[in-house]
Amino acid sequence: MSDQISLDALLRPDLRGASPYGAPQLDVPVRLNTNENSYPVPEDVVADITARVAAVAPELNRYPDREFTELRTELAAYLSRTGGVELEPAQLWAGNGSNEVLQHVVLAFGGPGRTALGFTPAYSMHPLISTGVGTTWVDGLRGQGTDAPFDLTVESAVEQVREHQPHVVFLCSPNNPTGTALTLDVVEAVYAAAERAVVVVDEAYAEFARPGTPSALTLLQGRPRLVVTRTMSKAFAFAGGRLGYLAADPALVDALRLVRLPYHLSAPTQAIALAALAHADQMLGTVEAIKEQRDRMVAELADLGFAPVASDANFVLFGGLVDAAATWRDLLDRGVLVRDVGIPHYLRVTAGTPAETDAFLAAAAEVATTATTTATSRATDRSSS
Amino acid sequence: MSDQISLDALLRPDLRGASPYGAPQLDVPVRLNTNENSYPVPEDVVADITARVAAVAPELNRYPDREFTELRTELAAYLSRTGGVELEPAQLWAGNGSNEVLQHVVLAFGGPGRTALGFTPAYSMHPLISTGVGTTWVDGLRGQGTDAPFDLTVESAVEQVREHQPHVVFLCSPNNPTGTALTLDVVEAVYAAAERAVVVVDEAYAEFARPGTPSALTLLQGRPRLVVTRTMSKAFAFAGGRLGYLAADPALVDALRLVRLPYHLSAPTQAIALAALAHADQMLGTVEAIKEQRDRMVAELADLGFAPVASDANFVLFGGLVDAAATWRDLLDRGVLVRDVGIPHYLRVTAGTPAETDAFLAAAAEVATTATTTATSRATDRSSS
Repeated sequence: MSDQISLDALLRPDLRGASPYGAPQLDVPVRLNTNENSYPVPEDVVADITARVAAVAPELNRYPDREFTELRTELAAYLSRTGGVELEPAQLWAGNGSNEVLQHVVLAFGGPGRTALGFTPAYSMHPLISTGVGTTWVDGLRGQGTDAPFDLTVESAVEQVREHQPHVVFLCSPNNPTGTALTLDVVEAVYAAAERAVVVVDEAYAEFARPGTPSALTLLQGRPRLVVTRTMSKAFAFAGGRLGYLAADPALVDALRLVRLPYHLSAPTQAIALAALAHADQMLGTVEAIKEQRDRMVAELADLGFAPVASDANFVLFGGLVDAAATWRDLLDRGVLVRDVGIPHYLRVTAGTPAETDAFLAAAAEVATTATTTATSRATDRSSS
Repeated sequence: MSDQISLDALLRPDLRGASPYGAPQLDVPVRLNTNENSYPVPEDVVADITARVAAVAPELNRYPDREFTELRTELAAYLSRTGGVELEPAQLWAGNGSNEVLQHVVLAFGGPGRTALGFTPAYSMHPLISTGVGTTWVDGLRGQGTDAPFDLTVESAVEQVREHQPHVVFLCSPNNPTGTALTLDVVEAVYAAAERAVVVVDEAYAEFARPGTPSALTLLQGRPRLVVTRTMSKAFAFAGGRLGYLAADPALVDALRLVRLPYHLSAPTQAIALAALAHADQMLGTVEAIKEQRDRMVAELADLGFAPVASDANFVLFGGLVDAAATWRDLLDRGVLVRDVGIPHYLRVTAGTPAETDAFLAAAAEVATTATTTATSRATDRSSS
């Protein structure tokens, strides 16, 4: 800047000195750092995606359907088939990734002078999205009143909600980056305690949950302040298509139209998501295989002397590390990219193909001895699983 | 809402009672209300779009390039070819429509406790985007110190900047909805006067400007606080693809990474925009034909007794109406949808195909007598052109 005023002085004060969000995008043989689905899109789905784009492309001179009516209808049908509850299109909303629908919720119900509460460690975009639009963020605590450091008990969650009186509460189930799903009693209790708040349950990884883990979708009926967010980026193998969505009361959904940017979903985005939804069974066909790899990683990491956390997602958080950053580098040196999520002594690894699991576990076995702490501290960490 | 608290009480206070932005999307034979390009995408561009989507579709399980490097490179090349100035990729930024890049600018440099100034009537999303993220909006005035009600003089613009000391200034050239481009001396003077502000020149309609209208891109060199926004929605005939972009100093562009949502541009969005840019000459091939229709509408509307404003865009604002809402309905009854932009006694019509112009002018001729005021007041309005 050659001007008389520096860029820092122009920048919003709370952004000065900040770094952009984002995992390193490195060109590495085994990329297990962003919880992508490792399986490519099947050929006939590619053909359908292509055909649908060909159909809308001649009319790209026109603005898209601002209300993405067909997409909302198909998302409602998908959740009605899989979520254990009947939903109508007016209860659905979508954006360019679940980050955008979360931003819409915070823009409408948070904002300057208002407070959002989340229980960290959780999805790191929750505070960034909240403070990004001027909402005060409160870092709630996990592990209170329990020996498991990442668990959230009903009592602790309710107490923190009562203390901070937030306008928006974020729950994350299965929780990223720790991996474990909440039981619904926590959602019910937080909703009841947060009397003036919109309660968001981020279910980005719901399709990977272990059997017997119900979705918070089943709680929507009669709870007009409850929002359940989902994404097509994970189980749906559609991260590049950027389609996140939520389900809530129709009146709440309607209010999001006040804060979305008009025509926020392009015609091709709508068409491509519709193609993926039309092949939902196929797109989700790899979920069971991925869950097997996840369970295999949890078991074998424990055998290697690490401390994996129980997981309902397509990743495993594993602890017991002397120096997480050093272990991250040691694994990278072996061609395996995992994620240092900033929790001391822990790293996160995505469950992918069997070959990727082989490569990761082989690398993990090589570094295990130097990476892990003494048996005593491992045992303490393991109690969280 | 069956809850104890109403949705209104949950909603951010300044949003209560608001209505969502958006022109009515009506199914009418002649749609001249949203300044779309009336010409469909050419067949071989459709083929290239489709081929490029087919190429990226198998890898949609992976996140897209977060930095959209190839797209920035091609946008820089396009502006360097057409904007009268050499730009590098690090000076380019893009979003899902220019609304999103404008929001990124306001998020980074506006926000709670800060002020944005625009000169209305201008693009109605400028205040909505600003206040949407908590920025205080100041409605600047046009027509000060001049007989032309929509003109913005150097003296008036500078005086208003000095008075309000904004953090972000919006200029719009060619101005929507009035149609006329600013001369660069206004941009230069506003930039010099707004010493602590980011100055945004919204050039959504730049490609339609009359000969001899230079772009504010030519002012970027040496002005690190200047931002010029563009869109592919208008001249580029790509409204459905949702691709807006901006050019600015690399350091300013880099700061936008602090506020964008990660992976905000999907892989297909990037691929499709690249296809359109690869066929830029063809996509822009209808611009001259549209300008002819615009000039024809200006001339014939004046002959019919309306008061059209001089236009550098693909639309014409025309005044002299007794009751703009009544004329809007009278035109709609004749199958022609134009835009009531909320300026008393004026309506805005998009320049489309010759057949669309025929239909519009025929309808306008039918309603002219009842629609227009006396000759005296018409003459006053016409001085603005």
